[in-house]
Amino acid sequence: MTNDSINRQWVVARRPVGAVKPENFALVQGPVPSLQKGKVLLRALYFGYDAAQRFWLTEQGAGYLPPINLGEPMLTGGIGQVIASDNPSYKAGDIVEGLMSWQDYPLVDPEGPIPLRVLPQADYPLTWNMSVFGVNGLTAYFGVTDGLKVKAGDTVVISSAGGATGLLAGGIARILGAAKLVGIAGGRDKCQWLVRNAGYDAAIDYKGEDLDKRLAELCPQGISCYFDNVGGAILDTVFMHMANLGRILICGAISSGYNDTKMQGPGNYMQICARQLTVQGILLPFYKDRIGEAIAALAKWVKEGRLRVHEEIVEGFERAPELLPTMYAVKNPGKLLLHVADPV
Amino acid sequence: MTNDSINRQWVVARRPVGAVKPENFALVQGPVPSLQKGKVLLRALYFGYDAAQRFWLTEQGAGYLPPINLGEPMLTGGIGQVIASDNPSYKAGDIVEGLMSWQDYPLVDPEGPIPLRVLPQADYPLTWNMSVFGVNGLTAYFGVTDGLKVKAGDTVVISSAGGATGLLAGGIARILGAAKLVGIAGGRDKCQWLVRNAGYDAAIDYKGEDLDKRLAELCPQGISCYFDNVGGAILDTVFMHMANLGRILICGAISSGYNDTKMQGPGNYMQICARQLTVQGILLPFYKDRIGEAIAALAKWVKEGRLRVHEEIVEGFERAPELLPTMYAVKNPGKLLLHVADPV
Repeated sequence: MTNDSINRQWVVARRPVGAVKPENFALVQGPVPSLQKGKVLLRALYFGYDAAQRFWLTEQGAGYLPPINLGEPMLTGGIGQVIASDNPSYKAGDIVEGLMSWQDYPLVDPEGPIPLRVLPQADYPLTWNMSVFGVNGLTAYFGVTDGLKVKAGDTVVISSAGGATGLLAGGIARILGAAKLVGIAGGRDKCQWLVRNAGYDAAIDYKGEDLDKRLAELCPQGISCYFDNVGGAILDTVFMHMANLGRILICGAISSGYNDTKMQGPGNYMQICARQLTVQGILLPFYKDRIGEAIAALAKWVKEGRLRVHEEIVEGFERAPELLPTMYAVKNPGKLLLHVADPV
Repeated sequence: MTNDSINRQWVVARRPVGAVKPENFALVQGPVPSLQKGKVLLRALYFGYDAAQRFWLTEQGAGYLPPINLGEPMLTGGIGQVIASDNPSYKAGDIVEGLMSWQDYPLVDPEGPIPLRVLPQADYPLTWNMSVFGVNGLTAYFGVTDGLKVKAGDTVVISSAGGATGLLAGGIARILGAAKLVGIAGGRDKCQWLVRNAGYDAAIDYKGEDLDKRLAELCPQGISCYFDNVGGAILDTVFMHMANLGRILICGAISSGYNDTKMQGPGNYMQICARQLTVQGILLPFYKDRIGEAIAALAKWVKEGRLRVHEEIVEGFERAPELLPTMYAVKNPGKLLLHVADPV
């Protein structure tokens, strides 16, 4: 529970080597920060989890965000309520979404690389602003529409299909007319869940099944669109099953654990040449002028019941570090969120 | 010199392990082949060299061509004269260009993966049909226009810049308005030649200079378009200097020597995501309906003196194998061709 005078922080104590662990963070307490020029002081309400957070923890950082120094609180996407503001676009009481950090009272530059967005009054759960109307929904929307250009008849494969972004990407691909939708995920239960609850035609358990063989069976005409959240060996295998002129969206590389900026590259990348593939990246800031369009489309699909929202909400600020490793061995599908406090 | 009754062949005797060597081929002699149903019998006039030939020699082959079995003559692009034809589109005396093999009298399926093309009577050298109006010119044209979409103001970097395709790609990029044109090539002499004779603003000798440092100096605003003929470490380094929303064309991977289908992938490929790059492949058969458009544009530029043709022509069928390794340590810029015989 948030205390009015104490600010708890989960700071980066040691950079992870390999997989991130709760021991990489330390709990420190201090006074609530004072407002600074141009900034906004928030009370944290929810933190969202994102596989890229492991990448943010590297010494170099991700590039699109500043590196996190040791002793500083861990960066996170989140929802907060404005307590005090020195920026005319934000006023006390506003509920906002954007980049903050693991502390009860984040002091935020609202015009940073991921600007704070004031959330509208709405008749849907506040957390949806971090899932379907947040980074995951927007990434899925622009990735499937603008990146992959999914159209009627396409054979679409999505890795990390049970993840927050993958689930929404699958839903959107179906809405755009994908004829076949195949998920790649870890574990038989999750694969069954994807087929039963998330509209997938089939799901491949890359841990228990032969991905190469299953893709050959399920996509005999080749894959027209691949939404890649994992990189590594899975990307390499999918390369060999792409259709001529196929499209690949590079959205993430969770399989690497984002351990290093220097990763294993896809050895089969010359398929880009042999089949004249188009491989495109996605980074949300490049779409900042089109956010309204995306949210309108997503909201319409959700309202019509064509796009479903899957969230898993865990309670308590003290659990922030222990949830992060579960992103890389996630058991439950959908967006993972930590509930920190309620708005006042 | 071609003999009227003996057909010399350079057959694949041993598959190369690592770099290709003349010893991978053996000279055999036999009778001139008889015409077969649907086929065309040629007298070979010129063979062209292409870095991808090393890839064709692997057991699996390149994918877009059938694998070459041991004991069969080496495949090559070439120019020949029709001696006899069982296909109504080709008649004796026609000069044709397309896929053939290292023998005096290739017997060719004219409608194979790289169809035979009857060459028009023209006022330019026959060999230009294999360079500026052949695979290299067409690859450069579609790669720069359709793949990279080079436009006025772009910073364009080309690897293997002194190669047959790279040289033409550089010329075309300049015609389309590239503001800065930087070549990557091996050796100081070749780099000087590129700046003096081929219109490059600068050329980086990747063997003698620090590519990373030089790219930072030469392209401080980032690279908007990269035409990649080499793959490997050079591609990886270029990835780190791409501008936001930059485009990369994957045209080849000569640095790998095309030794294996499983190559070292680019470890920095996550820049595709971090800078939202578009990486596209090129394989000429996908452009087969647009060849006329390309040749018309190329011919116009050549006629206007805006695009220059660079060729190196070597004499004698017996030298076919010894020239192939020089593709991977090429000293002279431009298209490498072997002159076998003259038309009658």
